[in-house]
Amino acid sequence: MGEVQDLYEKIVELAKRRGFFWPSYEIYGGVAGFYDLGPLGARLHQKIIELWREYFIHRHQDLVVEIETPIIGPEIVYKASGHLEHFTDPIVECLKCGRKYRADHLIEEKLGIKTEGLSPQELTRIIREHDLRCPVCGGPLSEVKLFNLLFRTTIGPYSSNIGYLRPETAQGMFVSFKRVYEAMRHRLPIGIAQIGRVARNEISPRQGMMRLREFTIMEFEFFFDPENPREGLDEYLPRVADTKLRILTAEARERGEEKPEEYSVEEAINEGVVRVPWMAYWMAIARDFVMALGVPYENMFFEEKLPHERAHYAQQVFDQLVKVSRWGWVEVSGHAYRTDYDLSRHMKYSGHDLTVFRPYPQPRVVKVKKVIVDKAWVGRTYRSDAPRVFELLSRLSPEEVERMLRERGKVVVEGYEIPGDRVRVVEVEEKVSGRRFVPHVVEPSFGSERLLYVTLEYAYREREGRVVLSIPRRLAPIEVAVFPLVRDERLVEKARNVKRMLQDAGFYVYYDDDGSIGRRYARADEIGVPVAVTIDYQSLEDDTVTLRDRDTWRQVRVETARLVEAVRRFLEGASLEELGKPVGS
Amino acid sequence: MGEVQDLYEKIVELAKRRGFFWPSYEIYGGVAGFYDLGPLGARLHQKIIELWREYFIHRHQDLVVEIETPIIGPEIVYKASGHLEHFTDPIVECLKCGRKYRADHLIEEKLGIKTEGLSPQELTRIIREHDLRCPVCGGPLSEVKLFNLLFRTTIGPYSSNIGYLRPETAQGMFVSFKRVYEAMRHRLPIGIAQIGRVARNEISPRQGMMRLREFTIMEFEFFFDPENPREGLDEYLPRVADTKLRILTAEARERGEEKPEEYSVEEAINEGVVRVPWMAYWMAIARDFVMALGVPYENMFFEEKLPHERAHYAQQVFDQLVKVSRWGWVEVSGHAYRTDYDLSRHMKYSGHDLTVFRPYPQPRVVKVKKVIVDKAWVGRTYRSDAPRVFELLSRLSPEEVERMLRERGKVVVEGYEIPGDRVRVVEVEEKVSGRRFVPHVVEPSFGSERLLYVTLEYAYREREGRVVLSIPRRLAPIEVAVFPLVRDERLVEKARNVKRMLQDAGFYVYYDDDGSIGRRYARADEIGVPVAVTIDYQSLEDDTVTLRDRDTWRQVRVETARLVEAVRRFLEGASLEELGKPVGS
Repeated sequence: MGEVQDLYEKIVELAKRRGFFWPSYEIYGGVAGFYDLGPLGARLHQKIIELWREYFIHRHQDLVVEIETPIIGPEIVYKASGHLEHFTDPIVECLKCGRKYRADHLIEEKLGIKTEGLSPQELTRIIREHDLRCPVCGGPLSEVKLFNLLFRTTIGPYSSNIGYLRPETAQGMFVSFKRVYEAMRHRLPIGIAQIGRVARNEISPRQGMMRLREFTIMEFEFFFDPENPREGLDEYLPRVADTKLRILTAEARERGEEKPEEYSVEEAINEGVVRVPWMAYWMAIARDFVMALGVPYENMFFEEKLPHERAHYAQQVFDQLVKVSRWGWVEVSGHAYRTDYDLSRHMKYSGHDLTVFRPYPQPRVVKVKKVIVDKAWVGRTYRSDAPRVFELLSRLSPEEVERMLRERGKVVVEGYEIPGDRVRVVEVEEKVSGRRFVPHVVEPSFGSERLLYVTLEYAYREREGRVVLSIPRRLAPIEVAVFPLVRDERLVEKARNVKRMLQDAGFYVYYDDDGSIGRRYARADEIGVPVAVTIDYQSLEDDTVTLRDRDTWRQVRVETARLVEAVRRFLEGASLEELGKPVGS
Repeated sequence: MGEVQDLYEKIVELAKRRGFFWPSYEIYGGVAGFYDLGPLGARLHQKIIELWREYFIHRHQDLVVEIETPIIGPEIVYKASGHLEHFTDPIVECLKCGRKYRADHLIEEKLGIKTEGLSPQELTRIIREHDLRCPVCGGPLSEVKLFNLLFRTTIGPYSSNIGYLRPETAQGMFVSFKRVYEAMRHRLPIGIAQIGRVARNEISPRQGMMRLREFTIMEFEFFFDPENPREGLDEYLPRVADTKLRILTAEARERGEEKPEEYSVEEAINEGVVRVPWMAYWMAIARDFVMALGVPYENMFFEEKLPHERAHYAQQVFDQLVKVSRWGWVEVSGHAYRTDYDLSRHMKYSGHDLTVFRPYPQPRVVKVKKVIVDKAWVGRTYRSDAPRVFELLSRLSPEEVERMLRERGKVVVEGYEIPGDRVRVVEVEEKVSGRRFVPHVVEPSFGSERLLYVTLEYAYREREGRVVLSIPRRLAPIEVAVFPLVRDERLVEKARNVKRMLQDAGFYVYYDDDGSIGRRYARADEIGVPVAVTIDYQSLEDDTVTLRDRDTWRQVRVETARLVEAVRRFLEGASLEELGKPVGS
């Protein structure tokens, strides 16, 4: 209403009109937290996913493998993972109109009181103390309760078979860890990645594409030996040797600092800022990946979470934050040290052994204590009870037996006595061929729809009163535009041939012969087509065309026969001037 | 137990051991109808999806666009689509032990009676007549009921907000049709595609990877003008001019035929075998696509569904069937003529106009009938009731008014009479600038996990007592293997360099220096690596390596400097002999 649109509104308007994204189910009034990706958005999304794959999987193909597991999981998985207990938000209900609100958000918005880490009881107390009421009808509010964010369903025809939609892909990697580990012939460290939809039943999501109830996660669990946490790193560390990370540590935050400090990856490791060396490595790759989407270094940093901000499974967490227009610093990735929490929980709940065994290079001889008992004496003394006595003795550790002998001069188990001269503890040498342990895990995790929005926001420029979407060339949904200069049949025919040639070469082509050439450039710039090919009258004479750079609006002329190669090189990063003769020179 | 494994079992064993696929949630005893894709399976899956994109979208980029919509949808969408009412299977419960069964399957298995198209009442009658009982406990069975296959959930904190997981991606395209149509500047015909997860809550799925409760659909809705159903086709039809389709028509099936007949695409169109010309075109592309997965022409045909076999929305359906070892002919794609069913239903349920308007090249002058009534007379006669009378009259068609005048000499609506001299029907000329209509739709739809299994089955060969997986080269999850001939440090070092060179060039490389070279070839063949590079002692002398073809086991020698190009050409289809000198010649 006469107000100036903010950048978010401009992008949302453009996204709807040109087909990047829009709210789902619009004809039914929409459902909060669900968005569609249109033709351009879906292609941009695919390219962002492909770029992530390249950075984290393809370039690390000896370290990271990708799998696919289901979205729907049985209840036991989310009991084991802790999500049934911990994956909650505080909710409050109006006792008059029945509307429901996220309690912490309501308090922060209406009262301006910080609520991080507060319990439902504490939130209730704040509501009572400030007489906070329903913002719609003014009715009184209920006690604050915890609302579980898992989408619940039933698997098959038995109503007792509860299932949930995964809120992260991670549990798929943990539950199937052993199968992957076997198939990969016991490779360690190993990253197991997944890219797929997840669902979180937010109470009242209101940030458009930034907070969705259903979205796509790109993440991997990186399993390593906790006794050898640098294993394999030396081969990869040189790749990020010069990489600087801006980090705001939890300790600095507790001191009241708000500005991140700069560390090289090695400093972050050596100074113990990032506790797991591999985590620092993956943070460096995350930095480079987000920069490749168009976010400058200074608009990004890693914030260490405070203990009460961390998920239940994590011992250290860094959020990668990026500055966006409307919401300030927002999280685009999370880097969590999940320890052996998940595998250990699944061992406990499933009864399956999820440890790994690593042979020593050579079997080691170790000294171990053993309990030696005079079996003949026990047999004579306890007769038919003797097996039971052996069983009970076997459950005692050598240390316990030593203690009993030291303190009481005999061993007593469930009333059976063995005197000190019939039992002793000796030290023997044993050959041990390896070690069995539960791997620890660091997890880099990205939300791709949010990154898609961030990419659009950083690509958005206004120039001479119109929009140019400077999407990084390799991410552009439509790669090249083809225009006849005017709607002359000879130009149109040649333009169509050029279009087909480029399509056959594998490019996505935007063809347009409607309106003036200026309007057509504008329509192509607005959706971020990096380069436009124009067929003009000179094209009919010497079989050349012009190439125009979306970002500089400069033009060069190239031979049609060399066009495919020129476009390919341009998309790979060449400057226009390398590809042809400047127009008008 | 001494029995010979069938092909399915062999593939399942291989798939688990090497990491193609396995049942999900194994450590918790598994959940029927859910499978994981392991590292090799996920890559094969991606390549199959990418191939589908190439065949149906990239090569048709002027016709088909891809979007992404949510898996979770509000109840109204599935009311409108008819799935709440029609997407059901018959279920029967044991009244003693409570076990539930799919009634039609139970009857077919235990009694050998065909059940296609039978109602729950008819199924109940068969159970009663044959005294069919619970196959586990022998208890009596309940009445047969219909069980809805939609996974149900709740969206947000209000329990009345029912949501469902989509059983097909299609409703996303219908609900968002208007947005896409606008963003694509009113292109028609237009295909709107989606590749994504869907969920169907099968009663008791028991066919492994062939019948999943959660799987991936690749499909598109192709919207066209029903009055101009060949529009745009002429440009594309030549691409499939020589394509033959094996089709078993519904009519032939009703005659008792079991063998398909061969039609060219043009014959299928011209003889009306396939009612919508574009549908025949897409069936031809489907044929080529499935052949590219390795299925020979003669192991595939299109079966037209009988009326009672068709989904509720379809007027003509062809299933693309492929022969597999254990289950005979199975559906790998469905081609449905959905008419305007879905858009019309969503118009009705949402109240939104989903018609499209197509201007005529020039406005047309058409003759239309109009009802002319003596308004002054109606006003004088009916006074305050006059608006009501006008309203009622406006609801009558000119034809109805004509009929009343012809038959009774007057018009009577809800007791109000207008004599024949106060109302008449005239014909007037009107300018009409275009036509408004609901597009019709044909839908090609593929299940990708099933295609993955089919691809593995058709790739499976045994040779000299071991397995060679002859996956089409461009689909192979691992593209090239690198081996040092023996574990000599100089060979290992060179092999690692070659491996890195190939990885840097973008290939997925299988490196192995464990065991004999023969065993390593065998391990690579078993997972379908198309070509193996071996570094031997000659490599140290003249910087050449050998290339070995997985399928022929023949070898050639190439220079290391030309290796990247040689591997690329081999994967694109070149024969080994084009790439180097035969070894041993």
